[in-house]
Amino acid sequence: MAEGEATSVMIIGGGAAGMSAASRVRRLRSDWPITVLERGDYVSFILCGLPYYVEGLVDDESRLVVYTPEFFRMERNIDVRTGHEARRIDTPNRLVEAVDLESGASESFHYDRLVIAAGAQPVRPRIPGLDLDGVFTLHSIPSGMAIRSFLGSQTVRRAAIIGAGYVGLEMAEALRAVGAEVTVIEALESVLPGGEPEIAALVDEELRRQGVDVRTGQLAQALQGDGRVRRVVTSDGALDVDLVLVSVGVRPAVQMAREAGIEVGPTGAIATDSRMATNVPDVYAAGDCAEAYHLLTGRPAYVPLGTTANKQGRVAGINAADGNAEFAGIVGTAGLKVFDLEVARTGLTEAQAREAEFDPVSAVVRFPSHASYYPDTRDLTVKLVADAGSGQVLGAQMCGPDTVAKRIDTVAAALYARMSVADIESLDLSYAPPFATAWEGIQLAAQRILEKLQR
Amino acid sequence: MAEGEATSVMIIGGGAAGMSAASRVRRLRSDWPITVLERGDYVSFILCGLPYYVEGLVDDESRLVVYTPEFFRMERNIDVRTGHEARRIDTPNRLVEAVDLESGASESFHYDRLVIAAGAQPVRPRIPGLDLDGVFTLHSIPSGMAIRSFLGSQTVRRAAIIGAGYVGLEMAEALRAVGAEVTVIEALESVLPGGEPEIAALVDEELRRQGVDVRTGQLAQALQGDGRVRRVVTSDGALDVDLVLVSVGVRPAVQMAREAGIEVGPTGAIATDSRMATNVPDVYAAGDCAEAYHLLTGRPAYVPLGTTANKQGRVAGINAADGNAEFAGIVGTAGLKVFDLEVARTGLTEAQAREAEFDPVSAVVRFPSHASYYPDTRDLTVKLVADAGSGQVLGAQMCGPDTVAKRIDTVAAALYARMSVADIESLDLSYAPPFATAWEGIQLAAQRILEKLQR
Repeated sequence: MAEGEATSVMIIGGGAAGMSAASRVRRLRSDWPITVLERGDYVSFILCGLPYYVEGLVDDESRLVVYTPEFFRMERNIDVRTGHEARRIDTPNRLVEAVDLESGASESFHYDRLVIAAGAQPVRPRIPGLDLDGVFTLHSIPSGMAIRSFLGSQTVRRAAIIGAGYVGLEMAEALRAVGAEVTVIEALESVLPGGEPEIAALVDEELRRQGVDVRTGQLAQALQGDGRVRRVVTSDGALDVDLVLVSVGVRPAVQMAREAGIEVGPTGAIATDSRMATNVPDVYAAGDCAEAYHLLTGRPAYVPLGTTANKQGRVAGINAADGNAEFAGIVGTAGLKVFDLEVARTGLTEAQAREAEFDPVSAVVRFPSHASYYPDTRDLTVKLVADAGSGQVLGAQMCGPDTVAKRIDTVAAALYARMSVADIESLDLSYAPPFATAWEGIQLAAQRILEKLQR
Repeated sequence: MAEGEATSVMIIGGGAAGMSAASRVRRLRSDWPITVLERGDYVSFILCGLPYYVEGLVDDESRLVVYTPEFFRMERNIDVRTGHEARRIDTPNRLVEAVDLESGASESFHYDRLVIAAGAQPVRPRIPGLDLDGVFTLHSIPSGMAIRSFLGSQTVRRAAIIGAGYVGLEMAEALRAVGAEVTVIEALESVLPGGEPEIAALVDEELRRQGVDVRTGQLAQALQGDGRVRRVVTSDGALDVDLVLVSVGVRPAVQMAREAGIEVGPTGAIATDSRMATNVPDVYAAGDCAEAYHLLTGRPAYVPLGTTANKQGRVAGINAADGNAEFAGIVGTAGLKVFDLEVARTGLTEAQAREAEFDPVSAVVRFPSHASYYPDTRDLTVKLVADAGSGQVLGAQMCGPDTVAKRIDTVAAALYARMSVADIESLDLSYAPPFATAWEGIQLAAQRILEKLQR
């Protein structure tokens, strides 16, 4: 750049990571030009709220947007280009080529610093019929609006959800709430695949109790219909449907980065260091297109979540603005509401611990949400996993009707600090009869593990 | 002791600490004689449940007892002597002299190992009239039964509570629930003295909203009546009452220990090392009569709570049984429900941090319990305190209508691990719209503190 000219920052993607980065740059550099290229019409959107929007609990899509493009343009002097799709990154010349999706015109943007926050795309399984009317994925505000509009204009008596992950189960609840019969089809042997089986079993029970037809170990093989979807053919038969939601996960949007010579790591997402810098100088990556360092395995992981996107975007923005920040890494915490259950996890499952070459020992404990003599006690369940050799806590999963997510946070903090099960037993946790027991569930589980280790 | 004879363990006090110790000894030493001397009729009682028992939420006092004396005698082979008051410890001869309160007979017990778990006594302020009918403290199951019986047999239109600490405020709620007009008289300038003023102000507001007459900065000077209490005279006037609860704290029951040459520490409670051993060989102390090591100040503290009593009792029992356990220490975590508010604290207040020669910096943040677009968001408030020099987190207090106590646990774990505010910002905490926001309140507060430190 010419002497005296301000450094320009380009951000690809206007989601949580991109807008966090943009805001950090602006905060640190009041005079640097900042441009955000966003393919869609919205920025700083909250995709996690989509199931509740589809259900109608959230009345208007604008509530899933933290700030409008106008806000960023007017209040933060950030040049937000919605309807602009970045197509090519020319790293030697520091250019991003983009297309204005409305006019079709191409435009080339110079950058001094680039933050790639291109997000993720829903995985489309290789089955025929995905293009029929009434077949949806849920990965953006427009996709949520499309489902809601379909539900409002068509009769949807029966819905099938392919994939029993977080979004699939949240949508099972949403579609039950709007009156549909819901079938969940999951290729693997249990709901919430990749989770602890003891917790998945309780979630499965809750789904059935709520009238959801759960079909695990079944493969969706084809969607059929006359323009509009009418049947799902599975490895075990077929079912009539009026709507299909495909929710079999997401994959990081890395093609453009890969073509530009930006390194993609073993997880398939963009590789970065702890400063969110890629292998190309002055190019950062953050959010659902990027890997995250896993504090327990010491290896990169791909766990695309809004919480991580916020943190990584912040770090990328600070560094792009010549600041100095590091992303500490993740421990794999996630939470979910499924009907009347809260479900939460942090760290490694027993199976993941074994894969990561720990020697896992675990305990499953059912415990009361608070003192049993105080009204309205609920049963909660925790599975705690530790390494038998070192005693280090490796993970926990919990489910129950309330306070589960915020209870798992204590373990998330313990994992971050690499505590042992003995440390968990020693923690000075809050207690009063209306909201706790003198020993917390995780402490009872820690005691159970300590007893196993002493044998 | 004679060759081949089993080691005998004596435990003074049958509360949480004493019975935890007894159970640990039995678990490790199936053949050692264990005797518990308990002055009252109950053991393993849960005093924290008393306000809910008085209110009638807990229907029967037996629900506040985890196990009966018979259970310990029959199932665990522990010689529980209820109605026996220990009076003197003769450490050179390893004897405890006790009185059978029913018969008046004295008895002397030999011990090889002694655990003192004598608990605490309510502080009796020096004001006239404490012996009038209708004046109570709440420190035991019989004292709870006495209040409940009084409420059942007498007309109690107006009640005064002297002391706005945890028990005082829980009892304000209980007495409102049974229909009384309630006045809380607190000598210090705010309710929950010793807490953070910003949190106390919100508790004060809630008490007034619930119709409690809160009189802070007023001294109760005399209780007056004709056999039965009828008036409280305060530094600001007088009020008519039918019942008075005195709840101005507890003091550790140490007189017998002190007379036996067992060292009492700077807090006034029995001094122990991390194994809960006193200065006298083979004599341990645990629970409300003992000090606890404070992990943040590195000094002994007196914070009598059931959670700590359980842990200390366990450690004392293991060591008395020739095992090896250490009590890690406390960080000062406590929780409380006051009407529709949960209140919780952990670590040091800003004032305590200053006293402990830190250089405190703090932030108070109001934050939503979960995503604002999801129904029923509640406002929660957190105050986070850190050391400006090192960035170490020193404490947090929180209040709000729900999940506050379990949210403070995350900070309790962070304090245990000596995390910095930057660590708090980096924590990988659980998020989903129905129960969290992408940045937790403590992380927003940590960011606020980091900004202050960068200025």
